Amino acid sequence: MLKKIRIMTPGPTPVPVDVLLEGAKETLYHRNPEFEKMLANASEGLKKVFRTEGYVFILASSGTGAMEAAVANTVSPGDKVITVVGGKFGERWADLCKSYGANTYEIDMEWGDYLRVEQVEKALKENPDTKVVFTTLSETSTGVVNDIKAVAEVVKNTDAILVVDAVSGLIAEPLEMDKWGVDIAVAGSQKAFMMPPGLAFVAVRGEKAWKRIEASKSPRYYFDLRAYKKKYTDTPYTGAVNLVYQLNKSLTMIESETIEKVWKRHAIFAKAMRNGIQALGLELFAKKPGNVLTAVKIPTEIDGLEFLKVCREKYGMVFSGGQSQLKGKIFRISNLGYVDKLDMLSALATVEMVMNEMGKHVPIGAGLKAMEESFLEDDKNENLG
Amino acid sequence: MLKKIRIMTPGPTPVPVDVLLEGAKETLYHRNPEFEKMLANASEGLKKVFRTEGYVFILASSGTGAMEAAVANTVSPGDKVITVVGGKFGERWADLCKSYGANTYEIDMEWGDYLRVEQVEKALKENPDTKVVFTTLSETSTGVVNDIKAVAEVVKNTDAILVVDAVSGLIAEPLEMDKWGVDIAVAGSQKAFMMPPGLAFVAVRGEKAWKRIEASKSPRYYFDLRAYKKKYTDTPYTGAVNLVYQLNKSLTMIESETIEKVWKRHAIFAKAMRNGIQALGLELFAKKPGNVLTAVKIPTEIDGLEFLKVCREKYGMVFSGGQSQLKGKIFRISNLGYVDKLDMLSALATVEMVMNEMGKHVPIGAGLKAMEESFLEDDKNENLG
Repeated sequence: MLKKIRIMTPGPTPVPVDVLLEGAKETLYHRNPEFEKMLANASEGLKKVFRTEGYVFILASSGTGAMEAAVANTVSPGDKVITVVGGKFGERWADLCKSYGANTYEIDMEWGDYLRVEQVEKALKENPDTKVVFTTLSETSTGVVNDIKAVAEVVKNTDAILVVDAVSGLIAEPLEMDKWGVDIAVAGSQKAFMMPPGLAFVAVRGEKAWKRIEASKSPRYYFDLRAYKKKYTDTPYTGAVNLVYQLNKSLTMIESETIEKVWKRHAIFAKAMRNGIQALGLELFAKKPGNVLTAVKIPTEIDGLEFLKVCREKYGMVFSGGQSQLKGKIFRISNLGYVDKLDMLSALATVEMVMNEMGKHVPIGAGLKAMEESFLEDDKNENLG
Repeated sequence: MLKKIRIMTPGPTPVPVDVLLEGAKETLYHRNPEFEKMLANASEGLKKVFRTEGYVFILASSGTGAMEAAVANTVSPGDKVITVVGGKFGERWADLCKSYGANTYEIDMEWGDYLRVEQVEKALKENPDTKVVFTTLSETSTGVVNDIKAVAEVVKNTDAILVVDAVSGLIAEPLEMDKWGVDIAVAGSQKAFMMPPGLAFVAVRGEKAWKRIEASKSPRYYFDLRAYKKKYTDTPYTGAVNLVYQLNKSLTMIESETIEKVWKRHAIFAKAMRNGIQALGLELFAKKPGNVLTAVKIPTEIDGLEFLKVCREKYGMVFSGGQSQLKGKIFRISNLGYVDKLDMLSALATVEMVMNEMGKHVPIGAGLKAMEESFLEDDKNENLG
C-alpha cells in the first residue's frame, strides 16, 4: 500500500521542499563576493535566533562538532569544569571534557530528571575554581528541558562561563543568550532550523567567553574559534556552500513567522502530544518535558524495538527509540521544525493503531480527541490559528 | 548581457544538475535502514576511488577537518613528524602538527617546486625516530603534483607511516593506496567528486596505521577515527544525509566512466591547458604541474586581482587567485571534476580576451588553436573521444 515517509525524529526533521530546492542551486566558489554576502546574511539571521549581539560561527560539521569546538576552545588540561549529566547529550559534554583532560565534576541525575538550580549553586560553591559549566537546554535523549535562565543567573556571579548545548532546543524553546547571560551556545542545522544535517553553529558573546577562549591551551585547528573570529563572517575553511543557501532560506522562513510564534508553536504542539499520550493511558518519561519532543514509556505488553519497526514499515512513521540505557524502554516523538497540527495527529494516530495491533489496547481515537481539544483550547487562548 | 557563472576553481567545482537534484530528495532519519544502506554503499564506492581494501570514513566537515583527523589520530605531543611544505596546504600540515605539539621537521621547498624523493630519504635518515610523514599529492596552491609512489616506497621501509593530503588530487591523479603502500589519505567532496562542499573522507589501511591511531594520546572526539571504525559503515554522529545521497550519485557516475578514464581525462585536459597557456606566451608557475589545475604567472603588464575580477564580472568565469605569498602573482585554472573540453576552451578564451582588454597583448586565438590541437592529438593516441 502507498506509504509516505514522515520523520518525527528529533533530528533530522522534515525539510520543506523550498529549503531542499534551495540546496539544488548552482554551487558557487566560496570566496566569491556573492557567496560572502550570503554568509554575512546568514550570520545576521543566526544572531536573531540565538538572541545575541555576539558572534555566531557557522561550522561544516554535525552538532557534536560544535560541542567539541566549545570544549576545545574553553578547556585546558587540568581545568576544573562542571557538567550536567541527565541523558546521552549531557554525558557527551562529560566525555568531551574528559577527552580534553579536564578535571570534571559531574552533576549526575537520573535520566529523565531535570536540573535544579540548587545543584549548580552547590557544585559551584564546592568547586570555586570552576572554569566552565556545561549544560543542556533540551536533553534530546529524554525530552527534558532545563531552566537555563536560572542557571545563568547563578553562573554569571562566578568566574565560570556557561556553555549551553542548544542543539535540539534552539528555536523550539526560548533561549535568550544576551538577556540571560549565556556565554556560549551551540546548535545544529537538522533540528528546528528544518534543514538537512551538515551545519553546526557556535554562538559566543562577551569578554568573559573570549578571555577563556584566548586562554585555552588545548590543541585545535578546524574548530579553532579564533580563526573563525578573524575571518568573520567568512569561514576560514571551505564552507558548505549549498547548505548555507538552505540556511538563509530557513532563517527567512523563521523570521517571517517570528521567533516568538515559533516558540509558541512548539509549546502548543508538545503540550497537545502530552495530552494525547496521557489520554491513551500511556506514561510520559520526562519529569519535566519540554517543547522539543515527547518521550513515552513503552508499555510492558509490547516490544519497544518492534513497535518502532512496525510504525516505520507499515505507516512510514519514523519515531526515535531510546538511546543507551533507554534502548527499548521509551520512544520519542519529535515536534521539531517543519511539523504542523495534522502531522501531530498523524503521529498520534500511528501510536494508537500500532499499539492496538501489537496487543496494547489503548482506547482508539481517545488520543486524537484529546489532541484536537488541546489545539482548539490553545487557539482560543493564543489566537494563533 | 547574459552571463553564465562557470567555476573553474580547484574546489568547489561545477556540480552536475543530477547530483544537485539528488541532494533535494527528502531527508531521511540517519538511523533508518534505508539510509544505513546508502552509507554502506558509499563506503564501498569510496574504497574503489581510494584504491584500498581498508576503511574509508565519511566525515561531515571540510577537507581541513579530515586533515585534522589524520593529525589528531596519529600524533602525540612531542612526536617527531616530517612535513613537506611547498605551498599553502603543505603549510597546513605543518600548522596542524604544531597545534598538536609535534616535534615537526619541515622539508621546505620554494612554492611551485616539487618534492624529490631524496629529500624524504635524507629527512628520514636524519630523523630515524619519525612517527609520521605528512605530504601532499596535489598541492592546490601551486598546481604541483608529487610522486607519492616513490615516497611510499621509501617510507614503508621505516617505522613511520605515510599520510597523504589527496584533498584536491583524488580521482584526478592516480593514487593507489594499497599497491603503493600509503597508510592514510584524506579527500574532500567539492573536488573531483563533483559534489558540493561539506563531506570529507579519511582512508586508513593496514595494521601499521591502526597501531599509530591506537597509540595517539592527543585529545579528539568528533574526529576520533576509533569511534568511526566501531560504527563502520554507519557514522558515530549525525551524517550529512543529503550530501551522502549526492556522494552515491557521484560515485556511480565515476564508476560508470571508470576511474582509469577519469584519471586520463584530467591528464588530457590539464595538458591541453598548459599547451594553450604556453601558446599565448604566458608562463606556467609549477615546476612539475599536475593534472588538477594549471597555475599561471600573472604577466607584469596587468594587475592580478583586477584580472580575476574582470573575468568574473564580464564573463562569469571564476578562476582562483594566488594564496598567501602568491596573492596577485598567479591565477589558477582548475579542470577538476565536471568539466568538459568546451569548458576548457571557454576558460582559455576568457584568458585571451581579458588579457588583451587589460593591455597584455597575447595572440588572440593562438591558445584555443593549441588547445584544440592538443585534444585532437590525444584523441588519436588515446581513442577516448
